[in-house]
Amino acid sequence: MRWFAILIFLSSSLCLAQESGSFRPSSTNVWGADYPRVDNTGRVEVRVKAADATKVKLNFWSGPKVDMVKQPDGFWTVTTAPLVPGFHYYTLIIDGAEVADPNTHVYFGGGKPASAVEVPESGSTYYSVQDVPHGQVREVWYNSKVTGTWRHALVYLPPDYDAQIKVRYPVLYLQHGGGEDETGWIRQANANFILDNLIATKSCKPMIVVMAYGYARRVGQAPPDLTGKPFGSPEMLKAMQDMTAAFEDDVTQVLIPYIDLSFRTLSDRDHRAMAGLSMGGMQAFQITLNHLDLFSYIGGFSGAGGMLVLGDRKLDPKTDYNGEFADPAAFAKRVHLLWLGVGTNEPERMRAGLQRLHTALNEAKIQHIFYESPGTDHEWQTWRRDLYDFAPRLFK
Amino acid sequence: MRWFAILIFLSSSLCLAQESGSFRPSSTNVWGADYPRVDNTGRVEVRVKAADATKVKLNFWSGPKVDMVKQPDGFWTVTTAPLVPGFHYYTLIIDGAEVADPNTHVYFGGGKPASAVEVPESGSTYYSVQDVPHGQVREVWYNSKVTGTWRHALVYLPPDYDAQIKVRYPVLYLQHGGGEDETGWIRQANANFILDNLIATKSCKPMIVVMAYGYARRVGQAPPDLTGKPFGSPEMLKAMQDMTAAFEDDVTQVLIPYIDLSFRTLSDRDHRAMAGLSMGGMQAFQITLNHLDLFSYIGGFSGAGGMLVLGDRKLDPKTDYNGEFADPAAFAKRVHLLWLGVGTNEPERMRAGLQRLHTALNEAKIQHIFYESPGTDHEWQTWRRDLYDFAPRLFK
Repeated sequence: MRWFAILIFLSSSLCLAQESGSFRPSSTNVWGADYPRVDNTGRVEVRVKAADATKVKLNFWSGPKVDMVKQPDGFWTVTTAPLVPGFHYYTLIIDGAEVADPNTHVYFGGGKPASAVEVPESGSTYYSVQDVPHGQVREVWYNSKVTGTWRHALVYLPPDYDAQIKVRYPVLYLQHGGGEDETGWIRQANANFILDNLIATKSCKPMIVVMAYGYARRVGQAPPDLTGKPFGSPEMLKAMQDMTAAFEDDVTQVLIPYIDLSFRTLSDRDHRAMAGLSMGGMQAFQITLNHLDLFSYIGGFSGAGGMLVLGDRKLDPKTDYNGEFADPAAFAKRVHLLWLGVGTNEPERMRAGLQRLHTALNEAKIQHIFYESPGTDHEWQTWRRDLYDFAPRLFK
Repeated sequence: MRWFAILIFLSSSLCLAQESGSFRPSSTNVWGADYPRVDNTGRVEVRVKAADATKVKLNFWSGPKVDMVKQPDGFWTVTTAPLVPGFHYYTLIIDGAEVADPNTHVYFGGGKPASAVEVPESGSTYYSVQDVPHGQVREVWYNSKVTGTWRHALVYLPPDYDAQIKVRYPVLYLQHGGGEDETGWIRQANANFILDNLIATKSCKPMIVVMAYGYARRVGQAPPDLTGKPFGSPEMLKAMQDMTAAFEDDVTQVLIPYIDLSFRTLSDRDHRAMAGLSMGGMQAFQITLNHLDLFSYIGGFSGAGGMLVLGDRKLDPKTDYNGEFADPAAFAKRVHLLWLGVGTNEPERMRAGLQRLHTALNEAKIQHIFYESPGTDHEWQTWRRDLYDFAPRLFK
């Protein structure tokens, strides 16, 4: 009887999550869930019911898989080594099935619904909700002639948007990473609170932030068949380039006009920025440098530069990216900000790629910012810090 | 190397979901997932990898649990009997662990992230995205003095809200069910498209729809300890009444003033409605009938009436609900709409409760609508139909 089930849920949900020692339920937990919980050193204790399982592993994406231990009550538990502060995706592997933990809200990452914990960063308030004026996040749907589909985007409007009805605002296009979607910057990173807090202290200009869905395929185009094609094969590279090109057309031909029509934007290039993380950083580089008539601020968070374009070779400023880096004086006049960031604990290949791009840009005398997030990996804490450094530099 | 993982995701996600016979991937699937898939009779085929599991069950909440069958490739599969059209929650039970299927987006239901399929309803376009003007859904956060917490709500604004900057709109407060949250009406039911489509054909008035988080506990109040207290015990009833009362204060003392301050509302009782499904219907009844100074339209979807108040006894119009039903003429003057709905396939106890209330209201000569959704259970297809019938009757 579902009727009973509802009341039972209601009842159980009233027994709110309990604290134990310094362990507290993660802020990502569903209402009433005691686990996962986090202590003040960053250790995470996970507990899940799987009475008949023979092997359960905890799979934090920023660390190794850990075996969980079966308890007499049918629950499996484990406590991790300390994790760095921030938002950490994880999944459970239950007898070979990789699934989300039913005790946390899920976040779209790795191409699937994933669990997560939030390890608090002592003293950091810049990405949490504060008693300051709040912007609103709006969901919009637009019909793309490029993809032939309705596409969903999130739009952050600054706190005074509804009150200052004559004011127009600059726009930052902000992209998620591969495996994530348009909800990531709000749900995983609290980008809205980062902006609210920066705007409240006048550390950054009030701006509109548009978060689009970064996957696209042209209307009528067949999906590529990559069966048996190895990683890095020409066919795979071609498929990725096709997708990025379709997304580029969607952004420049459909999304930007839609946003400029729907919101009180400043619609010239001097008031339009684009940034993204990982895959989104590559997209931001490609789209902005192909369309400097539309953009004048560029950000690449752990994915800046064209690793897709450059692979492991060094940037050639004369020829890569339409030769936009060939003339540093002209570039500085045209591009108000070129910003690269990477976490110091990211995989070697990622750090080396960003470092190589940074060096090549220095050699080419291209003004830019190179930011390194201390102690963080290819993860949202890096990108929160990136946004916190990047946004105040926009539209000055 | 996460870097590789991202590219591999990108690659795999480009192999888009394939059709097979009349089976098509559910519209709820994540990008690239072929399963679950639905045929044109409503059968659903589910497939999940769990190489080392010994028992996997498919658990559609509107039907019995079904054993899945292990295939030589480590995947488990099963095809259900035909399901009625609509949105159907399900989970997988993998060796005793009840989890979401990683192949679909998840929806908050049953107090946890749950999977779902959408079985198309032939000829129904009222809840799908159409090429008509679209409203926006906004996320708002408000600081509640009642609960001492920041609370999240979704707000639907009609298509012309930003253009008609002098126009003020009536407001419908629309609540989710027990185990769901403020996202349910948009994510599960497409309430925004239902409103868009009704407004486009001038079948209903342009209105604002506020969807609040229906759980609450007063600041400083300890969570109730219901350990060992049986279902229906006085302690449990008390806990539920406390929660509903806290939510009532949050809505009437904090949320309504916040909404009236933040949006261009018509803020008198003649332009304010409240409805909800299941638990939300009980809340709507309690809140509106305790505050007829604030509301004049009332809707209960599969949870109308005060099952929480009445239990299995019949309504006494003279005394229940502050005696508001005692004088039918006065009630008709004050309440512009009292609307009850239930699906014909809902559990007997639910149907009987609604029928008993309907009969008691008739005997008390209280004007009301009693709508029965043909062939549907305690599920979102019932509540989509409810909204589609209810919204056009508002604010005439």
